[in-house]
Amino acid sequence: MAVEDAGQKVRVTIYDVAREAGVSASTVSRAFSRPGRVSSATTRRVHEVARRLGYRADTPYRLPSSTSSRVIALAVSDITNPFYFGIIRGAEKAAHDNDFTLMVADARESAHEERRMLERHLPLVDGLVVTSSRLSDTDLRGLARRLPLVVINRQVQGLPCVVPDNARGVRRAVEHLATLGHRRIGYVAGPEASWADGSRWRALREACHELLLTDARVGPVQPTLAGGRTAAQLVLDRGLTAVICYNDLVGVGLLRGLAAMGVEVPGEVSVVGFDNTLPADLVTPGLTTVAQPVTTLGETATRHVISLLTGKADSRDITAVLPVHLEVRQSTGPAPVRAASGSRSR
Amino acid sequence: MAVEDAGQKVRVTIYDVAREAGVSASTVSRAFSRPGRVSSATTRRVHEVARRLGYRADTPYRLPSSTSSRVIALAVSDITNPFYFGIIRGAEKAAHDNDFTLMVADARESAHEERRMLERHLPLVDGLVVTSSRLSDTDLRGLARRLPLVVINRQVQGLPCVVPDNARGVRRAVEHLATLGHRRIGYVAGPEASWADGSRWRALREACHELLLTDARVGPVQPTLAGGRTAAQLVLDRGLTAVICYNDLVGVGLLRGLAAMGVEVPGEVSVVGFDNTLPADLVTPGLTTVAQPVTTLGETATRHVISLLTGKADSRDITAVLPVHLEVRQSTGPAPVRAASGSRSR
Repeated sequence: MAVEDAGQKVRVTIYDVAREAGVSASTVSRAFSRPGRVSSATTRRVHEVARRLGYRADTPYRLPSSTSSRVIALAVSDITNPFYFGIIRGAEKAAHDNDFTLMVADARESAHEERRMLERHLPLVDGLVVTSSRLSDTDLRGLARRLPLVVINRQVQGLPCVVPDNARGVRRAVEHLATLGHRRIGYVAGPEASWADGSRWRALREACHELLLTDARVGPVQPTLAGGRTAAQLVLDRGLTAVICYNDLVGVGLLRGLAAMGVEVPGEVSVVGFDNTLPADLVTPGLTTVAQPVTTLGETATRHVISLLTGKADSRDITAVLPVHLEVRQSTGPAPVRAASGSRSR
Repeated sequence: MAVEDAGQKVRVTIYDVAREAGVSASTVSRAFSRPGRVSSATTRRVHEVARRLGYRADTPYRLPSSTSSRVIALAVSDITNPFYFGIIRGAEKAAHDNDFTLMVADARESAHEERRMLERHLPLVDGLVVTSSRLSDTDLRGLARRLPLVVINRQVQGLPCVVPDNARGVRRAVEHLATLGHRRIGYVAGPEASWADGSRWRALREACHELLLTDARVGPVQPTLAGGRTAAQLVLDRGLTAVICYNDLVGVGLLRGLAAMGVEVPGEVSVVGFDNTLPADLVTPGLTTVAQPVTTLGETATRHVISLLTGKADSRDITAVLPVHLEVRQSTGPAPVRAASGSRSR
């Protein structure tokens, strides 16, 4: 708890020591926590620099010993979004395999809440995995200077990231809709602060451009069932016959909104989601969706943050891009003749 | 972190001091943390007793100051069960309103994992809300001696508990099925270590007894979709026409299992769930289910643990029983004639 009592902003970090001593941060960590794994000359130099700069090895970048807490925090943007189930399960597996415990922190789709919550968690945990963060890149890099951090579902220059292959997933969905005769593909946008949203919309534009299709964008809407219901009117107003949604919750909400308005799916509108969560499988018609390797996302990121902590990896700018696939269900079908000819006349 | 380094088992607790000084635990807490709120004579006595017993005020029962972490942990039995969404949201609201932060801990339906996870969290948090614990009453009382603890969805003698009115919920479901002509009501059991499971089964037996119906029990099955699918064969083997399931996941799994076997719901079997989660609403036919006030469960329990922490309440044996209601959807219908006469012949 001493971390908070002393002025944290002026605290010397492991990175300051590493820079000054000309070694990596993990070498500094090891020099304090596992001196036997670093040459004695390096250990001496690190300790000398640390003493000179006033660095305290126990905080903020401390290697957990067997008697310390060994806790990793996993921050998610909305704990009630089933997208996170697999990520949490994967992170739990990696934590358990390495004798760590996982705590889950919920940002409730608010950058303000996310910042507050992470500040509270920082002194309590050994490492941090942040999923779908709504914070700025600068904020995230600031956090990474205070403890080992890995980012899921977002790319941040200079930080280790684990992301799904959004471009390929969107491309597969667009090709699927094109094969069904749709010539204009809509995107129902999610939160503007979401990296996934930006990357999916860019991928959709590129795929449409390459396949000589027209693109359209509606929203942004809340990334929830309610957001999807809101989108139903927007989709109809634009006369779209095929849309790819920011996530499954929006897709399921859209299916229900369209059903409430008497619009047939897939007869009049084809709908694609993103994430392949349980609601996509339960809803009628079943939602065609881009499936991400969620368990692997959580497991890979958590293993990496533990590697950083235990000195088995450096905190380099590594982006792992994991493969996705299209799960075809009943919410996508042939383009309606009227609308198909309508889009041809553009 | 000093908590863990010293031998925790022999540590003097706030309760020891309270007993010896003849005051409540919260008075001891206040005597150390907010001396202005306790008479100077009491403060003197508490400090004297504490010194004599070797009690250290900072742990394990410390009142969070504005500079401390102010973190409450909410432990759930399975973070991927949507039943917990409302509880988490309610707990978050109570925490946020009182400038606390919530961390969520997942027991993954394992008493072993729950114990390990709670041990790791104890030194990091100020208070604990445990939902649907699979631990023994003795274990839970042991935890409550180390920090303020409130239990959700379980009754433990001597601990503050917040529970749904399972008896009334089951009674309403049984009455609903009886009105539809069912004369034999089955229960698809969940985990044997679950208090909710025991209380629901007892309530079902009592309701059937009072209403001159026959009861039956199948399972236990895993409290998951897979468990529900397993239950489909068990329900058919017993020739049941109406079942109440341990929770919605079992209910939804059962609906899908029956559908896969070509059994009509509600034509041949009526199914009732428990929890009124999103899957109950999404599945076809919609699952009739007992709705619990989940947000209020989470909020009430978390407010109470914060009251214990801030000395506004004593850690008495208070059980709050919250009302439930039956959400009728399409998975329940009139008893099939054949089976109804079959049960009459018993």
